[in-house]
Amino acid sequence: MSFPALGVCYYPEQWPEEMWREDAQRMAALGLTYVRIGEFAWSRLEPRRGELQFDWLASAIDTLHAAGLQVVLGTPTATPPKWLVDEMPDMLPVGSDGHVRGFGSRRHYDFSHEGYRRECARIVTALAERFGEHPGIAAWQIDNEYDCHRTTLSYSPAALSAFQEWLQRKYQSPEALNRAWGNVFWSMEIGEFDEIEFPAMAVTETNPAARMDFRRFASEQVAAFNRLQAGIIRAHSPGRDVIHNFMGRTLAFDHFDVGADLDVSSWDSYPLGFLEDRTDEEDDWKRRFLRAGDPDFQAFHHDLYRATSKGRWWVMEQQPGPVNWGVHNPVPRDGQVRLWTWEAFAHGAEIVSYFRWRQAPFAQEQMHSGLLRPDTIEAEGYREAARVAEEIRAFPPVFDRSAKTPVAIVFDYPSAWAWEIQPQGREFDYFRIVFDSYRALRRLGLSIDILPSTTSDFSGYRMVVIPALFAWTEPLVAALKSFDGLALIGPRSGSKTENFAFPATMPPGLPAELLDMRVSRVESLPADCPVPVGPVNFRFWREFVVPGKAAKVVLKTNDGWPALIRQGRIQYMAGWGDEQLLMATMQELADELGIATVHLPEGVRIRESGGHLYVVNYGEEAFDLTGLDLAGDLVLGDMEIAPSGVTILRLPS
Amino acid sequence: MSFPALGVCYYPEQWPEEMWREDAQRMAALGLTYVRIGEFAWSRLEPRRGELQFDWLASAIDTLHAAGLQVVLGTPTATPPKWLVDEMPDMLPVGSDGHVRGFGSRRHYDFSHEGYRRECARIVTALAERFGEHPGIAAWQIDNEYDCHRTTLSYSPAALSAFQEWLQRKYQSPEALNRAWGNVFWSMEIGEFDEIEFPAMAVTETNPAARMDFRRFASEQVAAFNRLQAGIIRAHSPGRDVIHNFMGRTLAFDHFDVGADLDVSSWDSYPLGFLEDRTDEEDDWKRRFLRAGDPDFQAFHHDLYRATSKGRWWVMEQQPGPVNWGVHNPVPRDGQVRLWTWEAFAHGAEIVSYFRWRQAPFAQEQMHSGLLRPDTIEAEGYREAARVAEEIRAFPPVFDRSAKTPVAIVFDYPSAWAWEIQPQGREFDYFRIVFDSYRALRRLGLSIDILPSTTSDFSGYRMVVIPALFAWTEPLVAALKSFDGLALIGPRSGSKTENFAFPATMPPGLPAELLDMRVSRVESLPADCPVPVGPVNFRFWREFVVPGKAAKVVLKTNDGWPALIRQGRIQYMAGWGDEQLLMATMQELADELGIATVHLPEGVRIRESGGHLYVVNYGEEAFDLTGLDLAGDLVLGDMEIAPSGVTILRLPS
Amino acid sequence: MSFPALGVCYYPEQWPEEMWREDAQRMAALGLTYVRIGEFAWSRLEPRRGELQFDWLASAIDTLHAAGLQVVLGTPTATPPKWLVDEMPDMLPVGSDGHVRGFGSRRHYDFSHEGYRRECARIVTALAERFGEHPGIAAWQIDNEYDCHRTTLSYSPAALSAFQEWLQRKYQSPEALNRAWGNVFWSMEIGEFDEIEFPAMAVTETNPAARMDFRRFASEQVAAFNRLQAGIIRAHSPGRDVIHNFMGRTLAFDHFDVGADLDVSSWDSYPLGFLEDRTDEEDDWKRRFLRAGDPDFQAFHHDLYRATSKGRWWVMEQQPGPVNWGVHNPVPRDGQVRLWTWEAFAHGAEIVSYFRWRQAPFAQEQMHSGLLRPDTIEAEGYREAARVAEEIRAFPPVFDRSAKTPVAIVFDYPSAWAWEIQPQGREFDYFRIVFDSYRALRRLGLSIDILPSTTSDFSGYRMVVIPALFAWTEPLVAALKSFDGLALIGPRSGSKTENFAFPATMPPGLPAELLDMRVSRVESLPADCPVPVGPVNFRFWREFVVPGKAAKVVLKTNDGWPALIRQGRIQYMAGWGDEQLLMATMQELADELGIATVHLPEGVRIRESGGHLYVVNYGEEAFDLTGLDLAGDLVLGDMEIAPSGVTILRLPS
Repeated sequence: MSFPALGVCYYPEQWPEEMWREDAQRMAALGLTYVRIGEFAWSRLEPRRGELQFDWLASAIDTLHAAGLQVVLGTPTATPPKWLVDEMPDMLPVGSDGHVRGFGSRRHYDFSHEGYRRECARIVTALAERFGEHPGIAAWQIDNEYDCHRTTLSYSPAALSAFQEWLQRKYQSPEALNRAWGNVFWSMEIGEFDEIEFPAMAVTETNPAARMDFRRFASEQVAAFNRLQAGIIRAHSPGRDVIHNFMGRTLAFDHFDVGADLDVSSWDSYPLGFLEDRTDEEDDWKRRFLRAGDPDFQAFHHDLYRATSKGRWWVMEQQPGPVNWGVHNPVPRDGQVRLWTWEAFAHGAEIVSYFRWRQAPFAQEQMHSGLLRPDTIEAEGYREAARVAEEIRAFPPVFDRSAKTPVAIVFDYPSAWAWEIQPQGREFDYFRIVFDSYRALRRLGLSIDILPSTTSDFSGYRMVVIPALFAWTEPLVAALKSFDGLALIGPRSGSKTENFAFPATMPPGLPAELLDMRVSRVESLPADCPVPVGPVNFRFWREFVVPGKAAKVVLKTNDGWPALIRQGRIQYMAGWGDEQLLMATMQELADELGIATVHLPEGVRIRESGGHLYVVNYGEEAFDLTGLDLAGDLVLGDMEIAPSGVTILRLPS
Repeated sequence: MSFPALGVCYYPEQWPEEMWREDAQRMAALGLTYVRIGEFAWSRLEPRRGELQFDWLASAIDTLHAAGLQVVLGTPTATPPKWLVDEMPDMLPVGSDGHVRGFGSRRHYDFSHEGYRRECARIVTALAERFGEHPGIAAWQIDNEYDCHRTTLSYSPAALSAFQEWLQRKYQSPEALNRAWGNVFWSMEIGEFDEIEFPAMAVTETNPAARMDFRRFASEQVAAFNRLQAGIIRAHSPGRDVIHNFMGRTLAFDHFDVGADLDVSSWDSYPLGFLEDRTDEEDDWKRRFLRAGDPDFQAFHHDLYRATSKGRWWVMEQQPGPVNWGVHNPVPRDGQVRLWTWEAFAHGAEIVSYFRWRQAPFAQEQMHSGLLRPDTIEAEGYREAARVAEEIRAFPPVFDRSAKTPVAIVFDYPSAWAWEIQPQGREFDYFRIVFDSYRALRRLGLSIDILPSTTSDFSGYRMVVIPALFAWTEPLVAALKSFDGLALIGPRSGSKTENFAFPATMPPGLPAELLDMRVSRVESLPADCPVPVGPVNFRFWREFVVPGKAAKVVLKTNDGWPALIRQGRIQYMAGWGDEQLLMATMQELADELGIATVHLPEGVRIRESGGHLYVVNYGEEAFDLTGLDLAGDLVLGDMEIAPSGVTILRLPS
Repeated sequence: MSFPALGVCYYPEQWPEEMWREDAQRMAALGLTYVRIGEFAWSRLEPRRGELQFDWLASAIDTLHAAGLQVVLGTPTATPPKWLVDEMPDMLPVGSDGHVRGFGSRRHYDFSHEGYRRECARIVTALAERFGEHPGIAAWQIDNEYDCHRTTLSYSPAALSAFQEWLQRKYQSPEALNRAWGNVFWSMEIGEFDEIEFPAMAVTETNPAARMDFRRFASEQVAAFNRLQAGIIRAHSPGRDVIHNFMGRTLAFDHFDVGADLDVSSWDSYPLGFLEDRTDEEDDWKRRFLRAGDPDFQAFHHDLYRATSKGRWWVMEQQPGPVNWGVHNPVPRDGQVRLWTWEAFAHGAEIVSYFRWRQAPFAQEQMHSGLLRPDTIEAEGYREAARVAEEIRAFPPVFDRSAKTPVAIVFDYPSAWAWEIQPQGREFDYFRIVFDSYRALRRLGLSIDILPSTTSDFSGYRMVVIPALFAWTEPLVAALKSFDGLALIGPRSGSKTENFAFPATMPPGLPAELLDMRVSRVESLPADCPVPVGPVNFRFWREFVVPGKAAKVVLKTNDGWPALIRQGRIQYMAGWGDEQLLMATMQELADELGIATVHLPEGVRIRESGGHLYVVNYGEEAFDLTGLDLAGDLVLGDMEIAPSGVTILRLPS
C-alpha cells in the first residue's frame, strides 16, 4: 500500500460479469489503486435466508485484484433484504411521529434491535471468514453512512426498551434520574424505569435533560453497532484497515466515539450537493459558489474527520460531477473535481475515492454522475481524475500526521445536540457557530486542527478556539489550566452542566482563577437586529456579563456591555461575532502570538502541510498570489491562480 | 387584602426547604404581597395513588404566611403524574392527525374524560379540605393556562362520545341535525347520532356547521371542567377568590363562559414573547418594538379579561426579563417591566404578579428569567419591581370598576372560530380585524371597554364598534335598537346564522329598520391588492353592498361601491379598513359625539382611569406630551416622556 | 339537441320542491338549455341500504324537462353515504402517511375497492334502469372530478392487493420485475409478488421505476372505475352522451385513457380559483390578472380536453363569480364571465354550463357564488350569461372538429408522473414546461391542437412541439419519421425508457437517422442562475449535448455548448427556454414554414375557428387590433378591444 492515492466506488453486481475485467483494467490505467465494493449487495449475497452466494463476489475481487487494484469490501448491513425485514418487521426504525419507516430504500433498521444486530454479526462473520485474508482485500468499510436520512434516532419498541435499560445503568434509581433531570418541574417524576417514555410526542416540549440523555443513548447505539462489526472483522481479517464513511454536517452521533473503533475515518464529500441546503450563507453568496462549493466546508470536514481516528483518513466518496439529490444539481466548474482532490491531499487524505465508476442507468441514483457515463463513455470527472493521478505521480503530496497547526478548534458533538434541543433563538446552531470561527481563521490564511472535547493537553498549539461548548469536561479544564497559548472561548461555552442545568456559579462555569465572570443573562436576536460592537457586530446572540475582579473588559458593545473579557491567557467573547469581528479578534490574538496571517479574498484558501503551501481558488476570478508575500518555490500551478486553480509552493525549510 | 399590589410565582417544591424562609422574607422586603404556588406539584402532593403528602405544602404556606404574604394556591390538574396516566392512558388528548399527545410535558389530559375529571375532583377536594380555611390562603388558581399548547380540541374516543351526546342534547333528532348543518350537501346525512365523526381527517374540508358545533362543544367542555373545580373550592374555602390564568391571543374557548365561574380573571402577560409570532405587523415594525412589545397588545388583553369577570382581574404572570419560548428572546429595554406593570394598573389590575421568583436552573423553562437569577442574585426585573412597589406606596393607583369608557368594542369568541373555519381569504382572522379597530381607537387616545356579544344594553357608552361579528345575538340586536350613541359595524358582521348559514335576508342580517342594506357579494384580496377609498384603502376584504331606501352611502370606494353606509345611529363599513381609514372614520364619529381625541405617535399610549391619565411610551424615542394639550397635574414622570417612560397626570375634576 | 349552448348545475335536493318549477322557468328564460343534476345525492336516493327513493328525482327531471330543459344526470358515486361507509370502512382511501381519509366531505372511496365498485354498479344500474330512456335525459355525468383532493393515489390494503396483482400480470415473475426496476441497487429485490410494498413510507426515496408503475396502476384504476359505469349507462340509456368532468392542471391519471370511454370530455373551469396556486408566474404578474385569470390556462385545457374525446367537449362547470376555495377569492372583472364563455366556444365547446344556479346558503360551498344569490336575486354572472345567450342566438359560433391547427403540442400524462418522481431540480414540472411552450405559441397568435403520445401520424400539422417527453412511444417515433413539417423536441425528451432507465444510446434516444446526438450530462439550476443564450436564456435546466455527424448546431449558449441542434426536419432544444427564447425559436420555425404570426401583448389572445378569428382581452388595458393587420369583417365587438372584451372577425374565405 502506498498513500496518497486515488480510488473509486464500484458495483459489480449492477453490471454483467463480462464487463468486470475491462472495467478493472481501465481503472488501473486511469491511475486508480483502490476500489470499494459490496456495501449494498446483501440481496445478492444471500437471496434467501441461509443461501449464501459469495462466489460472484469472489470473482469480482479476483478480477479487480488481478488488475492490480486493492479492494475495500463493504459490509452490506445498510440494506437488509426484504425476506429479512419480513421475518422481523420490528427491526424497522420508527419516526418521531410514530410512523414505521419501511422497506424500499436503505438504512431501514433500528440500531437497538438485538435481532438485527445478530443478523449483521452473522453476515459479517461469513464475509470476513471467506474474504478476510484474501490478498486483494486491503480494507473493510462497515455499513454505509450512519445517520444518512436521519436514522440515528428511532422511536421503536426496541429503542424504548434499550433506552430504559441504558437509563437504569446510568442512574441506578428512579430518584437519581428524577433529580438529575429536574423532573419535579411539571410533575414529570417517574417511579420505575419502565415508566420512561421517549422524550417526544408529548403535548409540548419535553425535558431537555431527558432529550440530551436520549441523544447520548442513540449515539452510543451507533457506536456499539459499529463496534460489533469492527470486532468481527479484526478477528478474521488481520492487518486490514477498518473504515466507515461519514457524511457532511451530520451531527446526530458522536463521530469521535465511532472513530475510536476505526483504523481510518473516511467521509463522503459532495461539495455542490452540500452547498444549497447544508450551509448558512445568503443566497447571493451561494450563487457565487454554485459550481465550486463552499470554500471552507470540505476543509472543515477534512480537519474534523482527521481528528476522529488519530490522523488517518480518506475521502471515500468524492463528487465527480453533478449529483441527483440537491435541491438543484449544477455541473461543477471545469477543474473543481481536481481542486477538491488536491485539497483533500493537502489536509492529509490517504485516499480520495470517486463515487462512482460508472453512472447507473437505473434506480434511485440514475441521475448521479460517475467517472463514466451510463454508456461507458468517459465523463468530465474521468479526465480530472486522470490529471490528478498524473500529478501525484510527479509530485506525491506529503502529510506529516504528527505535525500540529498553530490553531485548534474544539468540536463537541453533545454541544450540537444541546443547542438543537435548546436553541433559545432560531439561528443558534452549533455547527454554524463553530464553522463561523473556522471560516474566519481560514480567511486569515491559518491552518487548523480540530480537537475533541476530551482533549486534556493543548501543548503544541498556540491558539485554541472553543465556541459554544455545552458543558466543560474535566480534561478540557485541565488543558486550559496548563495552556501556554491563547484561548478564545464562548459565547455560551460552559453554560450547562452535564445534566443540562445551569452551573451553580452561572455560565461560563469555569473556576474563578481561570475566568472570573458570570453571564448574568442572555438574549437571542433576529438576523436584522445586530448588536453593534464598534464598526462590527454581534448577531443572533449576546450575553450580559458581570466580570469579577480578576477579569478585564477588553472590548465593549456600543451600549456599554462587555464584548470581550480577558483573564490571563483566556479571552471570552460574549456574543456571536460576525465575520469581521471574528477576524479582527483572531487577528489580534495571532499578532500577539506572532503567528503570521494574510487576508485572503472570499474564494481563495491556503493550507500548509508537509513543508508545502497548498493554495486553491474556489472563486470566480483569478487572484494574484504575489501580493500575499508568501515565500517558497512554485511546485504546481501559477502565482496568478485561476478559478478552480491549484497552486503549490515548497516552503523554505 | 388591599389592591392594587404586586405578587410573584413561586415553586417551593423546586428548592430545598431551607431556602424558603429567606425567599419569603426577601419577597416581603421587595414589596410583594401575593405568592402563587403549587400549580404543577401533583407528583409531590401524591407520589403514588392515594399517598397524599401535603405536609411540605403546609409548611411552605406557613412560611410564606409568616412573612406576611398572601398565598394563591394552584390546583395541580394541568400536570397529572405518570402513575395516573399509566392507570388510564385513554385520558390523553389526541391531535387532529389521530396521534396521541403523550406524557412528558404538561396539559396531557382530555377535557372530556370522565375518569380524569373524577381524579381532578378528588385531588382538589383533598387540597381544599386541608387548606381551604388556612388564613394564609387568599385565593385559588384552578389548573393552569387552559388551551396552552392548543389543548382545547381533542380527537380522542372520550371526546367523540361526549360530542355525540352533546349533539343529541342539542338537536334531539338526526333529522334536525342534518337540517341544521345542511348535510344534504355532499350526502353527509347521518341516521343515528353515533354515526357522527369528528369534523376532521376527511378527504377535504368538512361541513363548517359541524366544525362550529365541535368548537362550541369543546369550549363548553373547558368551562365545565373549570366549573367542577370552582364548585369544590367554594364549598371548602369560603371568601377566597377563585381565579384562572388566561393567555394572550388564545381564542379556542369562550373566556366569558369560563369567567362566569370565576371571581377574578387573570392572564399571563409576556409582551416580548408575544410580539414576534402573535402579532400581525410587518417585520420592520416588530423590530422597532423588539424590546418593548406591541403597544396595544397588553392593553387589549387587560380590557378583554377585565370584561370576563365583571371588572376584577389580575396579571398572574408578568414577564420580568427574557423568556425561553419565543422565536427569539430579546432582553426588555430598561424600564419596560415597570411600564408593563403600571399599564396593568392603569387598566384596573388588582395584582401584577411576576413570573417567577427565581429562575429555575433545570428542566424546560431554565432559560426563562425570574426576579432572581438561578444563583439567587437579583436580576434586572427585581429592581424594576422594587421601583413600582415604592411608587404604588407613594401613589396607589385607583380604578373605578363602575366607570365606563367612552368607546366599547364587542368581542365574541364564536366569531373567532367561525372565521378560522371559513376565512375565505388567507388573512381573514377575527383577532386581527378586531385588534386593528382597537389600535386605531388607541392611536386616537381613547380608552376602551370590551363587551361580550351577550350585552343587551349599551347605555353609558358613546361609541360601540362591532367588527366581523359572526352572527347576531338577540341581546345585541336589542342593545343596538336602544343605543343612543353611534355604532360602527362590519365588515362581515351578521353574515351568518347560528347554524353557519346565510341569513335569509342576506348579510348583515339586521332588521331593515336598523340597517336597510344587503351585502350582495364579497371578495378577499392579497395584501398587495388593496381597494382604494380616496387616499386610504380597504385591504384583504371588501363587500359589494346594495343599500336599501333607508340607508345612505357616506363614503365610496374609488371604483364606486359603497364603503361606508349609514342609517340613523348605525354605520356599516363594507371592507377591512387600513389604519388610516379606521382612524379617519372613528375620528369623525368621535367628533360628532364630541369625544376629544388626540393623534398619538406610533409608540405612545394613554389610558384614563380613576381621574388620572396614564401615559406610557413603548417607542424608541422620547415624546413631548405638552403638544397634546392634555390638562392635569403631573403625578409621576415627565411631560417629555422617555422611551419606556410612565407619566401620570391627575385630571382636573 | 343543438350546440353550442349554455347550461347550469342545479341541486333540486337542496331546495324545497315548490321552488323547482320557477327555477326551471327562469333557467329557460335566461337562455339555458342544459341542466346537470344529481351527482352528490346518494343519501337522498338511498337513505338506508336498499331503500331507493327515486321519485323526487323523477319529479325534478320532469319539472326541468317540462320547462324545455335537457338534463345531464350525474351518478352519485363521489359521495357514498355514511351507512355504506360504516358497512365497509375499508373502502376509505388511505394517505401516503398511512392515515385513513375519512367520511365527512367527498371522494371518500378507494378506486381499487371491489366492494365499493359493486355498490357503484348497483346504484348506477338502478338509476340507469329508471331514467335511462327518459326523454328529458340528454346525457350522463359519471362520478365527479376524479382526483379532486388528490384522490387518485391511495395506500389502502385494497390498493396494495390490486397493485400486487397488477404487477404480477405485467411482469409474470419476480425476477422480471427485479430486472425491470433495477432492484439490485440497494438490495431491493423481492422473491414473491406479495412482498411488494407501496413505493412510499420508506426511509428515503424509493425506486423511481416502482413509483412509475404505481402511478400507471393508479391511473388505470381510475379508468377501470369509469369504464364500469360507462358500460352500465350505455346498456340502459341508448343515445345519451356519457361524460365526466375533469379539472384544471390535474395530472394524476391519464385523461386520454378515461376519455377513451367517454362520448364527451368536459372540465370545470375556474380561472380565478386557478390563478394563485396552479400557475407558475411571479406574484406581480398574477396581480395583473387577479380578476381575469391566466390568459392561456383556460385555452390550454380547452385544447387538451378536446383531444381526449375526439373533439367533443364541454365546460361542465364555469366560474360565474367569486369562488370559495382559492387562497384569495376576488371578484371577476365585469365581462370576464362572458369572455370565458366565448373563449370556450372559440375552442369548440358544445356546452358551457355555469356552476351553479343558486348559491347554497349552507355547508362547504356557501361562499361559492352562483347565477343567483342565496336570496334568489340575480347575481352579476346571471347578466353576463344572459348576454352570451343573446349573442349566440344572433351569431351561433361554429367549430369544425375535423379542422387542424397549424401547430400541435404533444401532451403525455406519464411524463408528468416521471418528472414528479424525478424532478432533478426543484422547478422541473411537466405541466409548467409544456405550458411555457403553449404560451409562447399563443403570444405569436397561433392556434394549437394537443396530441396524445399515442399519435402515429402528424399529417395535417405544420409544426409539432414535444417538450420534456419522458419516453418515446413507437407511434410517436413513426409519426416523426414520416412528418413533413418541423418538429421541435426537448429538453429531456426521450431521456428515459419505459422502465425509467437511461436508453442504451443515452438521451434523447432517437435513432441516429432521426437525431444523431447524445445528451452527455444535464444540470438543474436555481431560478436566478440562468444560462445565457445570446440575449435570452435557458432557465432551470440545461443539457450538455455531443452532436453526431448528421446533426448541426444551430444555436449555442454563450459558454459554447449547443443550445439548438437540427437534423433534417427535427430541432432539439437543449435547455428550458425562457419566454423570449421559445418565442424566437418558434417564430423562426413558423417563418420557415410560412405560417403567419403576430406579436400579441401580454393579455390579448386570438383563436381561429370555423372561418372566424376570436379575440379576447384578459389584460387591464384596451388594445387596438388594427395594428396586427388582421383581415376580416367585424362580427362582434370592436377593433379597439377593451379589457374583458371579445371581438370576432369573419375571415375572408
